[in-house]
Amino acid sequence: MPAVSKIAPLSGFPEYLPADRIVEQHFLDTIREVFELHGFSSIETRSVEPVERLSAQGEDTDKEIYTLARLADTAATSPGENRSREPRLGLHFDLTVPLARYVLEHAGHLNFPFRRYQIQKVWRGERPQEGRYREFTQADVDVIDAGTLSAHFEAEMPIVVADAFVRLPMPDFVIGVNNRKIAEGFYRGLGLTDITGTLRVVDKLDKIGPDAVVQLLTETGASVSQADACLNLARIRTVDESFVDRVWALGVEHPMLEEGLAALAAVVRTVSAVAPGTIVADLKIARGLDYYTGTVYETTLLGYEKWGSFCSGGRYDSLASDGKTTYPGVGISIGVSRLVGLLIGEGLVRASRSTPACVLVARVSESEADRARSLAVATQLRRRGIACEMAPSASKFGKQIRYADRRGIPFVWFPAPGESDAAPNAHDDVRGQAENGGAAAGPQASDEVKDIRSGEQVPADATTWTPPDADLHPRVIPMPA
Amino acid sequence: MPAVSKIAPLSGFPEYLPADRIVEQHFLDTIREVFELHGFSSIETRSVEPVERLSAQGEDTDKEIYTLARLADTAATSPGENRSREPRLGLHFDLTVPLARYVLEHAGHLNFPFRRYQIQKVWRGERPQEGRYREFTQADVDVIDAGTLSAHFEAEMPIVVADAFVRLPMPDFVIGVNNRKIAEGFYRGLGLTDITGTLRVVDKLDKIGPDAVVQLLTETGASVSQADACLNLARIRTVDESFVDRVWALGVEHPMLEEGLAALAAVVRTVSAVAPGTIVADLKIARGLDYYTGTVYETTLLGYEKWGSFCSGGRYDSLASDGKTTYPGVGISIGVSRLVGLLIGEGLVRASRSTPACVLVARVSESEADRARSLAVATQLRRRGIACEMAPSASKFGKQIRYADRRGIPFVWFPAPGESDAAPNAHDDVRGQAENGGAAAGPQASDEVKDIRSGEQVPADATTWTPPDADLHPRVIPMPA
Repeated sequence: MPAVSKIAPLSGFPEYLPADRIVEQHFLDTIREVFELHGFSSIETRSVEPVERLSAQGEDTDKEIYTLARLADTAATSPGENRSREPRLGLHFDLTVPLARYVLEHAGHLNFPFRRYQIQKVWRGERPQEGRYREFTQADVDVIDAGTLSAHFEAEMPIVVADAFVRLPMPDFVIGVNNRKIAEGFYRGLGLTDITGTLRVVDKLDKIGPDAVVQLLTETGASVSQADACLNLARIRTVDESFVDRVWALGVEHPMLEEGLAALAAVVRTVSAVAPGTIVADLKIARGLDYYTGTVYETTLLGYEKWGSFCSGGRYDSLASDGKTTYPGVGISIGVSRLVGLLIGEGLVRASRSTPACVLVARVSESEADRARSLAVATQLRRRGIACEMAPSASKFGKQIRYADRRGIPFVWFPAPGESDAAPNAHDDVRGQAENGGAAAGPQASDEVKDIRSGEQVPADATTWTPPDADLHPRVIPMPA
Repeated sequence: MPAVSKIAPLSGFPEYLPADRIVEQHFLDTIREVFELHGFSSIETRSVEPVERLSAQGEDTDKEIYTLARLADTAATSPGENRSREPRLGLHFDLTVPLARYVLEHAGHLNFPFRRYQIQKVWRGERPQEGRYREFTQADVDVIDAGTLSAHFEAEMPIVVADAFVRLPMPDFVIGVNNRKIAEGFYRGLGLTDITGTLRVVDKLDKIGPDAVVQLLTETGASVSQADACLNLARIRTVDESFVDRVWALGVEHPMLEEGLAALAAVVRTVSAVAPGTIVADLKIARGLDYYTGTVYETTLLGYEKWGSFCSGGRYDSLASDGKTTYPGVGISIGVSRLVGLLIGEGLVRASRSTPACVLVARVSESEADRARSLAVATQLRRRGIACEMAPSASKFGKQIRYADRRGIPFVWFPAPGESDAAPNAHDDVRGQAENGGAAAGPQASDEVKDIRSGEQVPADATTWTPPDADLHPRVIPMPA
């Protein structure tokens, strides 16, 4: 392949070295395992949707969409010109728009309520200088029903996420929940009419502070006492159902408020029963202003609140509609790339080694017979589920051990030299042992395996030897902050 | 979300329903597991590369590249205009170009020989009407070294692939191997000089037949006897090393031919020793005319040869170079999407159910206490690694059982109704049992679990009950052709 221009990383397109990729895989595997334990089916949607469908979510998303063109076409024609009958295509920027389309396209072949998970890359055409990811992986679970969706599904989302996060090597987390009906009912009970405008202002509380929120609310027509009440609602945050009494103590009444409080209390009760200490009712959470209609979720790491939410979602009454049937749903999305990227970047997690291999099978000599012996050992170990690789060459054993050490491979296997072979490295063995603190001396009569961390070397049989459980696969380890 | 235009599938962008996705996941999981058993480290590269790098492989690939543009930019400017300092980006069309760039970019942080696997989507901007995939998943393994790469790695690729394919529910396969040096040395020994041109013609043998090959070769300057010799070489196909004698019997000699025959014989011997019956020396295999320099691979399914190769690759002496160091490699790529797509399309494989859930936990009533009891059972089963979901509502048990049946969930769990609860469905239970052939009658005193296939229903405890191994996860089953 001819060399082209200088290699330079592209900002916003993260890529890992093998050891960090093992960390990422561990997060993805754990999340998938938990999604499946909770009975969600996997789907994968194509990476592209018609641009028209992607941009139907509102003007704000337009600038984030990457559109596709065939190189041959862009060279020959202007961008507006579309030579095929196909709609113009763009890369999806989330997994919700594709889910809506998938549900409509395949509704006749799906069982409702449809419990699906989806772990895929998404793309956003952010300006490179903004330092945001332009390609990243999300892990979503949603329950979609046809017609109506029972409210009890709204408690499932925090339960699934808590079950995943407690298994992961990461700081403690808290899942904040709110219900869109609480703010809306409260504002209506107060006599306010611009619900979305009020929510939008209150949503800025953490950024601009309480005084600015009151100021902005009064500018949009609220009285000072109404603005104060909105602020007081937003400040309620409790780990149990006590938020209900605190809201009533504010003296505002509305049927929608009552409905929202009862719904949120049920979510808090249900989640606390199976995942105590993971949930908090936080009445300032807004999210998805014109999208969510019930419970909403946000998840932060304790001590790392400045990183924002890693896992958000909510209930929506109309994911999609084909004119006859409306599909409501509730879902939550884990921002896997951001989570893993920050944990790795801050040194809060690492993998115990950079390769899946647990064993390096040494080469005794470059003879075809000795190579075959090493391969036979490797084949036997692999059949028994023990990952291994063979040393690339029959260098001195000390060098082969260093090869394993550099990759973090904990064990080196020394096949016994064949009877009829010259076994030129048998003497190197002794030197290798001495150099590396091994106990054995002299040419070996049977296969031996060395734990290169302790230096202990023992006779071993590839049909029976088993590494300690902790060494079988790379471990992913939380690091002290 | 507002409804947009009619939903229509996009040709070339395959998408599966949940049951078929389970088949695809099983293939991907098995391939990954085997790659890791063989000591390959996972990497994922970004989906995009500079167009300049993608198109450096030759003009033929240009038309297959999808380029990206931000929607906001394409609306405002002409395509040639690039408003950022960044190179124009395109989606990768294979995993080799990104690997080459990754190796050059990260060489200082990689251990060589670098054993990597990569399972990712790739995109090709084929015309929709051609019916080819435009988005598909490849699973690649490669060994890359810095400077020189030992020949013995060339035997590893068929061993890895055979180890994966024998574990998969698919028809028998055969991995065809050749060595580029054999044809080149043979042609040179014959006195031919246009090696690539000759290869290109011989490569068409299966398509155009022997007479047309001879015809074309003579048109490009070969004598009839030279053309016949080329044809005779291409027709040699043996399951063991006997191809060596058959080549010598053609009476052509050249040092490069000798080298190629010895190398290919070593590959056949090594692979046959650990994966007997999976490899065949097939001297007509050409592949990657100006790319591969040693062993080349192609894999076909017995009885489905017309589908072509699902797994191909070879040795290349220069994957990449930074001017100082050259990186040779050897690799093989499994076309997972094509393989899975054809097996599913032909009805040769299916999943035993459409959900990971092994158990449906029934709801006894809609009371919060009974819902909590169902959730407690589900939580307990999940902690013990048993995937389950809860029935969406406390409908009649017969209906809940049908819910499980439609999804292929083998077990339905009936929590004992709470002492203080009305348990309004306890009577439905009897009807449900009767309808579904169950043995139990009357309200139950403890939890019970029903195998809905046999109708057998037994008392069970969520802290100890375990399903048969075969039911724990969905199985992926080969179907008779």
